[in-house]
Amino acid sequence: MIIWNEQQFVDYLMKQFPTAKNVTGIGDDCAVIPLTQDQSLLMTTDALIEGVHFLKEEISPQELGYKAVAVNVSDIHAMGGEPKYVFLSLAVPHNTKISWLKEFIQGIQRGCMKWDLQLLGGDTVGSKRDVFVNIALLGFCHPAHLKFRDAAKDGDHLYVNHWIGDAAGGLKVLQENIFKDEEAQYLMDAHFKPDPQIKEGQWLAMQSGVHAMMDLSDGLDVDLKRMAKASSCEAEVELTKLPISETLSYFCIQHKWDVNQLALAGGEDYCLLFTVSKDSAEHIEKQFLEKFGHPLHPIGQMKKGKPHLQYVKNGKKIDLKLKPFEHFQ
Amino acid sequence: MIIWNEQQFVDYLMKQFPTAKNVTGIGDDCAVIPLTQDQSLLMTTDALIEGVHFLKEEISPQELGYKAVAVNVSDIHAMGGEPKYVFLSLAVPHNTKISWLKEFIQGIQRGCMKWDLQLLGGDTVGSKRDVFVNIALLGFCHPAHLKFRDAAKDGDHLYVNHWIGDAAGGLKVLQENIFKDEEAQYLMDAHFKPDPQIKEGQWLAMQSGVHAMMDLSDGLDVDLKRMAKASSCEAEVELTKLPISETLSYFCIQHKWDVNQLALAGGEDYCLLFTVSKDSAEHIEKQFLEKFGHPLHPIGQMKKGKPHLQYVKNGKKIDLKLKPFEHFQ
Repeated sequence: MIIWNEQQFVDYLMKQFPTAKNVTGIGDDCAVIPLTQDQSLLMTTDALIEGVHFLKEEISPQELGYKAVAVNVSDIHAMGGEPKYVFLSLAVPHNTKISWLKEFIQGIQRGCMKWDLQLLGGDTVGSKRDVFVNIALLGFCHPAHLKFRDAAKDGDHLYVNHWIGDAAGGLKVLQENIFKDEEAQYLMDAHFKPDPQIKEGQWLAMQSGVHAMMDLSDGLDVDLKRMAKASSCEAEVELTKLPISETLSYFCIQHKWDVNQLALAGGEDYCLLFTVSKDSAEHIEKQFLEKFGHPLHPIGQMKKGKPHLQYVKNGKKIDLKLKPFEHFQ
Repeated sequence: MIIWNEQQFVDYLMKQFPTAKNVTGIGDDCAVIPLTQDQSLLMTTDALIEGVHFLKEEISPQELGYKAVAVNVSDIHAMGGEPKYVFLSLAVPHNTKISWLKEFIQGIQRGCMKWDLQLLGGDTVGSKRDVFVNIALLGFCHPAHLKFRDAAKDGDHLYVNHWIGDAAGGLKVLQENIFKDEEAQYLMDAHFKPDPQIKEGQWLAMQSGVHAMMDLSDGLDVDLKRMAKASSCEAEVELTKLPISETLSYFCIQHKWDVNQLALAGGEDYCLLFTVSKDSAEHIEKQFLEKFGHPLHPIGQMKKGKPHLQYVKNGKKIDLKLKPFEHFQ
């Protein structure tokens, strides 16, 4: 083997940089650094690379700036925290027009306004050819309300808080050059404008019945396997319960797209995946619906067993062949 | 005008993102966020881009990893802080060999060991063509010991704490393909292995006689102008006092290099530029020499006047034509 995939490299990094006892390091959505009895510092960083995460011809500079903020907000939100300070590293070719930069910054500003963030610094440099965007985001959380991905327990119900697969559908619309009517635009918006609901994350984090939580960025299939591994549990997902939007269902039929492929391996959902103790499930579902006006989506459960993800259809085990999520490569 | 230079873009960002009163944002070496009465959080981020900040054929992966840590350490050190937590964003082409990645990580580890840092997270992704390294570094400082670049005062003596121009000399050795004997290696090491002395920064930060402080990353000419502007002072630098290493002097004579160009506009010195009140100057020079075994280098003074940098030679005003520092572009 002379080349690693991303997961293999992360596994290597986790071995090379074991985390000290009082902090949380590589392997969750954010790093967690205790500050005081009432406050922990959360830190996350995410990069968007031209030609890999986006194509400059397809995403507007404003959408790119906004998305770069949103994907980081999603990580803080996945721990139950409050995002606060933004640091932007931007590398652009030297012939980049001022108009492009101004629009990109408008996107960053829109994100900052939406989530009440402050941009405090960064690094702006030239690049030879491609655009690189890296955002580092600091947030805060009361230590008692932090949720980690390794806390799922036998018997927990498994939930997501929004539709999944829409962003992947939006990418398909772009890739297959489908006519951009209102419905197609809805899917493209899901791809270009992720919308992590931090109030929902913060509320869920405050419920003691919620055990493990993380955000969906690489697709349910990959991310739930990570949760199962971190929690040493088996995860079981009922395929008939996947929350698929009407629009995505329609496009899947119309264009012969594999709905499971998009919903499970499409990536970039930026909603929450979390588990709730059996006893609290009904109560939390009810409270959530009352508070936020839309339901939680139960999609399965966690069980004692080897870390593993098992799909079932109407209760019957099923093996799915999914292609891994690969952005534009 | 359709294209900005880096400074113009930073000026635009400073206007677009005015900083709230209680924090320090864009415009100093680090952002400063007050946490408690005894502790402020420092945060900095710096990117290194292939083809702009380094050439993959010339820098070893280990040197690249180490340098990426060092340039960030330099920023925390320039405020008088203690660097602590590292976050690495790395984008590499998909055909990058495991051996390259392992050596790069060894470089990061060497930096972490040297400055007692912990790597807590980051993002590892593919890139289409070029290598992109971004490090975000968190540190801490007692609020009373923070030093800013805007605190220089009329009459202050101006110092640097190490030789300047050696790193720029190392870059020249590479660019002119000079035979790499021991002396040339000394200059190349200054270029590849910046060595911010955080104990010196922390000690200087604790001296009330030290007023303004910043690190030299883009060259004395650019950085001192920034300090003069931030402090609303005129800076005067005596060219005969620039601390030039014997090796650099020798190479400048031998290869007809312009020593002022390298020392003032070469960049990447990563030592400290700071001002000391007239009354404390002698005492601080003496104490520093005793404590660290090498002298501080007085290079001029700050004066009342329009923000401006004036070079003098044996007291006589002189105009220098310097080419701006441009890495590999």
